[in-house]
Amino acid sequence: MTAEPEALAEEQDVGLVEPEISASETAAAGGRRHLLSISDLGAYGIEEVLRVSDAFVEVGKRSIPKVPALRGKTVVTLFVEESTRTKLSFETAAKRLSADVMSFSASSSSLKKGESLRDTVETVAAMGVDAFVIRHSSAGAPAAVSRWVDASVLNAGDGWHEHPTQALLDCYTIREVLAEREGLAPGEAGMGCFKGLRVAIVGDIRHSRVARSNVLALAALGAEVTLVAPGTLLPPAVETWPVAAVSHDIDDVLPKIDVCYLLRLQAERGAGRFLPSIREYSSEYGLNARRASALADGALVMHPGPMNRGVEIADEVADLPRSVILRQVANGVAVRMAVLFMLLGTPHGQTPTGTLASLGGAWESGSA
Amino acid sequence: MTAEPEALAEEQDVGLVEPEISASETAAAGGRRHLLSISDLGAYGIEEVLRVSDAFVEVGKRSIPKVPALRGKTVVTLFVEESTRTKLSFETAAKRLSADVMSFSASSSSLKKGESLRDTVETVAAMGVDAFVIRHSSAGAPAAVSRWVDASVLNAGDGWHEHPTQALLDCYTIREVLAEREGLAPGEAGMGCFKGLRVAIVGDIRHSRVARSNVLALAALGAEVTLVAPGTLLPPAVETWPVAAVSHDIDDVLPKIDVCYLLRLQAERGAGRFLPSIREYSSEYGLNARRASALADGALVMHPGPMNRGVEIADEVADLPRSVILRQVANGVAVRMAVLFMLLGTPHGQTPTGTLASLGGAWESGSA
Amino acid sequence: MTAEPEALAEEQDVGLVEPEISASETAAAGGRRHLLSISDLGAYGIEEVLRVSDAFVEVGKRSIPKVPALRGKTVVTLFVEESTRTKLSFETAAKRLSADVMSFSASSSSLKKGESLRDTVETVAAMGVDAFVIRHSSAGAPAAVSRWVDASVLNAGDGWHEHPTQALLDCYTIREVLAEREGLAPGEAGMGCFKGLRVAIVGDIRHSRVARSNVLALAALGAEVTLVAPGTLLPPAVETWPVAAVSHDIDDVLPKIDVCYLLRLQAERGAGRFLPSIREYSSEYGLNARRASALADGALVMHPGPMNRGVEIADEVADLPRSVILRQVANGVAVRMAVLFMLLGTPHGQTPTGTLASLGGAWESGSA
Repeated sequence: MTAEPEALAEEQDVGLVEPEISASETAAAGGRRHLLSISDLGAYGIEEVLRVSDAFVEVGKRSIPKVPALRGKTVVTLFVEESTRTKLSFETAAKRLSADVMSFSASSSSLKKGESLRDTVETVAAMGVDAFVIRHSSAGAPAAVSRWVDASVLNAGDGWHEHPTQALLDCYTIREVLAEREGLAPGEAGMGCFKGLRVAIVGDIRHSRVARSNVLALAALGAEVTLVAPGTLLPPAVETWPVAAVSHDIDDVLPKIDVCYLLRLQAERGAGRFLPSIREYSSEYGLNARRASALADGALVMHPGPMNRGVEIADEVADLPRSVILRQVANGVAVRMAVLFMLLGTPHGQTPTGTLASLGGAWESGSA
Repeated sequence: MTAEPEALAEEQDVGLVEPEISASETAAAGGRRHLLSISDLGAYGIEEVLRVSDAFVEVGKRSIPKVPALRGKTVVTLFVEESTRTKLSFETAAKRLSADVMSFSASSSSLKKGESLRDTVETVAAMGVDAFVIRHSSAGAPAAVSRWVDASVLNAGDGWHEHPTQALLDCYTIREVLAEREGLAPGEAGMGCFKGLRVAIVGDIRHSRVARSNVLALAALGAEVTLVAPGTLLPPAVETWPVAAVSHDIDDVLPKIDVCYLLRLQAERGAGRFLPSIREYSSEYGLNARRASALADGALVMHPGPMNRGVEIADEVADLPRSVILRQVANGVAVRMAVLFMLLGTPHGQTPTGTLASLGGAWESGSA
Repeated sequence: MTAEPEALAEEQDVGLVEPEISASETAAAGGRRHLLSISDLGAYGIEEVLRVSDAFVEVGKRSIPKVPALRGKTVVTLFVEESTRTKLSFETAAKRLSADVMSFSASSSSLKKGESLRDTVETVAAMGVDAFVIRHSSAGAPAAVSRWVDASVLNAGDGWHEHPTQALLDCYTIREVLAEREGLAPGEAGMGCFKGLRVAIVGDIRHSRVARSNVLALAALGAEVTLVAPGTLLPPAVETWPVAAVSHDIDDVLPKIDVCYLLRLQAERGAGRFLPSIREYSSEYGLNARRASALADGALVMHPGPMNRGVEIADEVADLPRSVILRQVANGVAVRMAVLFMLLGTPHGQTPTGTLASLGGAWESGSA
């Protein structure tokens, strides 16, 4: 557990998400609880999510991995930008909590008939929706929706802004793997593992909501983050980010880190325009077998998926034991169960404990 | 309650749906009950639906808004013409009744491989389907399906013909709002509010199934309907419609009505070809703030959605307290639960009462 | 029951699926049970599926046609090649077993972002999936998936290779109809009806996975299969197929058969390139009314759907009582329930009996 969550939470609020909508503005909406940005949580909030996730990881190992926690609740996935894997992960999580899941995809929606996003979500909300899980190509769309509707909103990725559940499942995975090495059960692991943890985030930081959320989460938890990218793929105000270092030389960084977090080179979002060529990127920044051998013995390789094998990660590296990419995916369901449960399943004003049986606690957005 | 439902039901049968399939032809099919046209119901049938809806509005307010009424029943939504909001409303309704919902969209169906609609629905029905909810671009398609399969058929909008559940949820909303003003609970409200109620339906009547179903329902219940549209957007045989008046001057009509029902200008169904320009339509028939101020104090503004803000309705009017558009949406789920329950959940030959506990009644299509 | 299932199983293994992946290679994967090819089953395995299906046909007649057998299991339908009817049948089957169903279609998947099939299925599997139902345009894709993931794999059609559940539901339907004629209940019917049963499979054998699976199943059960097709629509190594005869003259064959199984002429998979014209095919091989009258009194007409009415089957023939096409569809749900239950619902090492209550048996892939 981190000693001073308040102090850490303050550090991370420095201009990070500019020019996008600021997190403090988004956290206030209505009496409902939302997850719009990692900065809504702070270190203590992240710790709570991880502790509740421990319980749902246990649920996932049962022969019937379901709980009735959200029976009668309706969760709508509204993916204006497509993403099968994140949608499937959220829907699996909601179904395991016994919620009803409705799927609303952009390709078949009234948005195509020219209806505004606001009218669309207000209409859907009027049918009786408890939570919206929103993926949108514009930064700030989930925050806007949280102001329009009387329902909880979960940001499942908005433009280049944030993807908070991705960062949460990444943190969960790091904590789980490091606890295993100590011979600890998940419930026994604290948050001390993040203190001073050296993490490199490599790739297209500029266009990556995954990088933004992970930097916020890891910095809040006390990790030392190094950004590794060519200058054209760094964000404009990188000097305001709560990171320990910025590097253009992956070979210099690799021997000194505990976690190598590779980002997907998102050609479909225009990353190519910032590079001489994909081949050059791969040769300068791709984690190939030679480079992977420079990593310290216990260092982890992580990736949010889907991987471009042969671009940011070589085939043989993706399949090494130190690559915990499928564990990230597996933990994603439990972490999303935890977030849905904390937003929808608990009355206000109480504190969740670490066991599912006693979970009746509260989690105010922006409370950290 | 209307005094002479039979007489009213007769009036409404005069050539209204020509050149489409006639309602009386469609109501007979099989031993199954269907909802193909408002004229299958008549005033008494509409009253029954609204009474049963009262019970489901109550269910919607529970912390777990579900009932086991249709457990084990399979409801298939077959939307050959896309409509996310109506589909979502029906699917939410079916899930809250604990039915299994299967979705069959045109874009991924064997219809694209050239299979006939008949073979498609017979095939789906053979898998064991209790009800089809059908949206189709051709008038009469749901009626045809009701003759082919041994399952209940709900018309969710067929071409320019009918959209009966839309009219039912609109009537429910009018009755609910007017009852509230009298300080009455939904269960206490009768049907007297419709007697002499002055309703203007404004817009593209010619291409509107919503207008057809609402005219049938409101006329059956004793309301005085005025159609307001440019001549090119009126239907060919408008003189046979059971309406009190036809007008080309919205400014003349607005001060004299209790409900202003605006239709969506459906550019995607070719409304533009019947107009000099959309801008001109908006200026002549759009409900802007100036016009809305001419409405009587208690007059309601309604719209089936999705709205074209700035075309048939101005932004500031859509958001007035008198605009009950989101209440229409919210009631849609309860009304569709009522219809599904009445078609699938009750044995033949009994009469439903107004409380859910005692609901065991019957509702024969065409029985009015 | 066939006397010597082992012998029959051997016969059918002769080069049939070349140039595609061989069945024996596919059956070994992991500790999970799969259904990749009819040759995984052999005569005894087919008999077991039909016996278990009897129980699920009974379930389908209940007022609530569901059982809790697979509660808490997650079944993913992964249809990289679209097929609404097979998908709907599998999803209905899974829901009636109380499994959670997730749908993963190619059109909205990360496969379009260039992710490999392997990474995609490994990712989905990591979320906690018990079974994949896979339709793919490439022969061998389901077998490959069965080697990559720790989940059961059901082949729902792969390229020109196999479509095993189609053959199983076809066999079930034949056995059911013939038993009915004897006045037998489904549970009382044995497998004797297949011994010497004369079946003609007519049409585009070359490109038909349905033909491959049915030839394997029927031959294993002792039926005498005749392939009827123009030379260009026969497979290259037809002489290695376990069939009694090959004919180019449907009129010669029709009077001598018990079952006439018509294949869909799959213009969308290029069948047209192998024919002078569709009209010519229809005139030479289509089952029109004149030809149907040459069939023996009790002979059945079958088709896997969707039918091209007027091409391989005339309108009036499709609607004859001897055409059991909709019974095939109806039985498809029960047979797929049986397969899902046998793969997922039973512990290893036991033998299923014919009644649902006592079903606790095992079915090892490749055990025949």
